[in-house]
Formats: sequence, structure tokens, C-alpha cells
Amino acid sequence: MICFINNSFVPYRDATLHISDVGLQRGFGIFDYFISVNGAIPFFDDYLNRFYLSAEKLNLKVPFDRGDLKKKIYHLLNENKLAITGVKLLLTGGFADDLYTPTDPNFLIINIPVPNYSDTYSDGIKLLLLDYVRYLPEVKTTFYLPALSLLPELKRIGALETLYHHKGIVYETTRANFFIIKNGVLITPSEGILKGITRKHVLKVARLQMKVEERIVKLDEIFDSDEIFITGTSKHILPVVNIDGKIIANGRPGTITNKLAQDFKAYYQDQIDKK
Amino acid sequence: MICFINNSFVPYRDATLHISDVGLQRGFGIFDYFISVNGAIPFFDDYLNRFYLSAEKLNLKVPFDRGDLKKKIYHLLNENKLAITGVKLLLTGGFADDLYTPTDPNFLIINIPVPNYSDTYSDGIKLLLLDYVRYLPEVKTTFYLPALSLLPELKRIGALETLYHHKGIVYETTRANFFIIKNGVLITPSEGILKGITRKHVLKVARLQMKVEERIVKLDEIFDSDEIFITGTSKHILPVVNIDGKIIANGRPGTITNKLAQDFKAYYQDQIDKK
Repeated sequence: MICFINNSFVPYRDATLHISDVGLQRGFGIFDYFISVNGAIPFFDDYLNRFYLSAEKLNLKVPFDRGDLKKKIYHLLNENKLAITGVKLLLTGGFADDLYTPTDPNFLIINIPVPNYSDTYSDGIKLLLLDYVRYLPEVKTTFYLPALSLLPELKRIGALETLYHHKGIVYETTRANFFIIKNGVLITPSEGILKGITRKHVLKVARLQMKVEERIVKLDEIFDSDEIFITGTSKHILPVVNIDGKIIANGRPGTITNKLAQDFKAYYQDQIDKK
Repeated sequence: MICFINNSFVPYRDATLHISDVGLQRGFGIFDYFISVNGAIPFFDDYLNRFYLSAEKLNLKVPFDRGDLKKKIYHLLNENKLAITGVKLLLTGGFADDLYTPTDPNFLIINIPVPNYSDTYSDGIKLLLLDYVRYLPEVKTTFYLPALSLLPELKRIGALETLYHHKGIVYETTRANFFIIKNGVLITPSEGILKGITRKHVLKVARLQMKVEERIVKLDEIFDSDEIFITGTSKHILPVVNIDGKIIANGRPGTITNKLAQDFKAYYQDQIDKK
């Protein structure tokens, strides 16, 4: 397998960066992630829009314009010949002699396996609460330390991710957006979150069949909701049945969630077929 | 110059890590930093205590015990033959196939030049305010993105660092601890901060000559204080004369600050001479 670093395609096993990179030294980096299915990349432009937005918010210059970037990505996909693969773009603050001050960005494109959540759809997943709000939440920064430091605890209780909350308000999970359903209304946090691409399209599908509210969501409400799910690029729609040891509703994935997941699956397949 | 990566001393120019390191990919890393002066490392054990504490808080295992670690550090100093040098220890979550889940840590020791603040002591420095509190502030994590994204603005106004505050309380600056003097009392934040080694020893020196309070410090108080300074490993005691464009007292370094800086300098020199 090959990957792309700055201006070269190199074998992934040999892909290294000098240790003076400020992404490594100072956590100064942004990324994005999407999936290619048989050469089709659903919502490709949405992901690239977000990547360029993240870069702009941190004054990091993406070294290629969108046309060139797409060419590099398709070249990588052609070379690696993977039917289904994740594509990660990573942009850091570059090499710094003082291990601190950003210089010219380092830019990577990497193919990685798509995580498989298929065992979890029928039973739903557990989340753990974490008092934390991301800095610049609309920017896809690389800082996952708060959640990663809890991975041993997550493993112990069989939870998939942490749900971020602060002062009674819930935001997002580590790698997904968060939704509740109450009395047939779909409700999802509006602020303090990364604007997920899957979130956007799930909302589009949902609006055709139910009332949708994007607003502040209180921690109190979630334990009183009828159904809960999260959305993400690899996860699509994943039912949540337990948060911090508390069982949600009857502890099973909800019927509205399952219906929406099926509808989204068809909508997603359409994106692939259109290619 | 050489540096140390995992179990090898390698030329710094060739020092690379595979891009799957979760310090790079997910900002999962801790570090520490101290200075060697002619082979003496003032407060060496304090720094190592903090490094092991940071690692422990994130369940990261330092691959060497303290005795071995000291040997590696002294070996590096002997090889690089630098009279005065910074020493940076960096520990990340290791290489991850999924670019996410921490594995066996990667550990680096790097010699870097000590920043020179000598032109700033006589006139004092400016700070910029930033609404931010570090996650796990007692742990020296690598996440400096909030401050780094403000560097262009800092440069524009001639400020050295950002001062973190939240909901009316001040904490620390990007790379230093924060102190105010009011009516002859030295006051410094007690919580939500990294416990600086220079902070600790400045407090020790100060307690011999004035009243000291470690407590919550309100943003309101700072603009009404008589003198302000910050402390850090490379900075020692650095007077602050301007915060967010507002001039502190008469806009000149204070006399108590200057006296304390001289006393600390003598105390620091003692540490070197003792060697």
C-alpha cells in the first residue's frame, strides 16, 4: 500500500515524518476522513469543504487546490486498488526548529481500513459520559487525548465512545454526532459540535418523514428520550441503548432509528450508484 | 547532533517516526522540558517526577525507570557537547494500525536550543488573553493548538504568550505560570494549572521575604495589581507590563519583581554550582 506525503507517493510502511513536526510536538493539526466504495466517494465535496474550512480556521494552507487534491486522492485509490477504504487527510503545522512555531504545513493522504460496526447495529451500543467540550468544535482538530485516555475504562464496560457534555448540555461523541428522538421528534445539538457530513445527510433524509429540531440538548432530556442514535462516516446510524450505565428506554434499538437507518442506507447506496 | 528514539541514539536530522504514531494522528502525548547548564540540571528530579506523573495520569508507560532515564539523558548530553541546552522528553501513545488506539509508547529525548528572553527583562512583555482552560491541566500534554493558532495575532501586537482565563478566573499562560503582586503580597493561581517547577522554586524563594497566596485569581484583580510576572523553565521570572492592550501599573517591570528575579537567579546559580 502507498500513501502520500507532501509531494510524494511512498510505501505506507516507509512513511515517516521528521520528529520536529508540530503536529507531533504540539498537537497542531487538522484532518478529515471519508470512505471510498468501488471508486465512489459519497458526499466527497462536503468532506473537502470541511477540510478546507478546518485549515482556514487555523491559518493552515492546504498545499493543493481542490482539483489537484481530488487527483491525488483518486491516484492513491487507483494504486492501492482497495474496493472499500477509508481515506484520511492530515495537515499539520509543519517542521519547526524550535518544536513550537508552525512553518509550512505537512500534508498526508492515507488509506486505512474502514472500521466494521456490523455486530453493533442489532443490539445497540453503550456510551460513557465525559465532561469536556472540544476547542474550536467546528474544526476537525487532531486532539483526541481526553477520549483516548478513557479507552481502558470504555473497554472494561463495553462502551464504544464517550459522549461529551458540560454544565448540563450534551454535544457530540468522540467520533460521532448525537441524536435523540422524543415523541416522534428528532433532536440534535446545534452548537459546540463538529458538523458531521453524515449528520447533515441524515437530517436531510429525516426531514422528509418527521419533525427535526437542531438546538441545545440538555443532559436531563437524554435519559428521558424514546430513542437515541449516533451518526458518523463509518458508523452511519448506530443505535445507543445505554449511557453511563443507564439503560435508554427499553434497552433496545428503537423502531424510528431502525427505519431511518434503512432509509439512509438506501440514500447512501444511491450516492454510490450515481457514480 | 543526536537524539534518542525508543531504544536508539540517532542523528537528529534523520530522526523520524512512522506516521501512524497516535501523538501525530490524535494528539495523544505528554512531554517535559528542562535545561542543562554545563552538565548540571537544576531541579532535575522535580522535572522527572512531573514527567512520570504525566505519563501515569494517561496510563502511558515510560519505557525506562528513573535511573536508566537519567543515564540516557546524560549520555545524550555528553555526545552532543552543548554547554547550555534544552532537553525535551516526549512520550506518545505509540504506533496504531487504526491511527487511533494507543499501543506501546514511543519515547524521544531531544536537545533543543534554549530560547533567549534576555531583551525582554528590562522592558517587560505583553500577553494576550484567551478564553481557554487546558484539559487535565496538571498533565503536560502536547496540545498547544489554541495558542499556536493565535501566533500571527501575537506577532502583530508584539505579545509573547496568551494568558488563559475562563468565566472570570485566570490560570496560566501558554508556557508559563502567572503571578501578581498586590500590596506586597505575591498571589498565584492554585488550580487549573500545570504545576511549574520554576513556579515551585520561585515560591520557595519568595516565601522567605513576603506573604504568598496560592488561590483562585480573578481576572478583575489582575488589572488592579501592582506588578505582574510569569515564570518558566527558560524564562525564569519575566515581568509582564501589558495584557490585552491594557497597561499594568506604570507599564514598567516592578521593583519587587526585579528583586525576586535577582534572588531567584542566585538560587538557580547555586543549583548549578552544587553540581
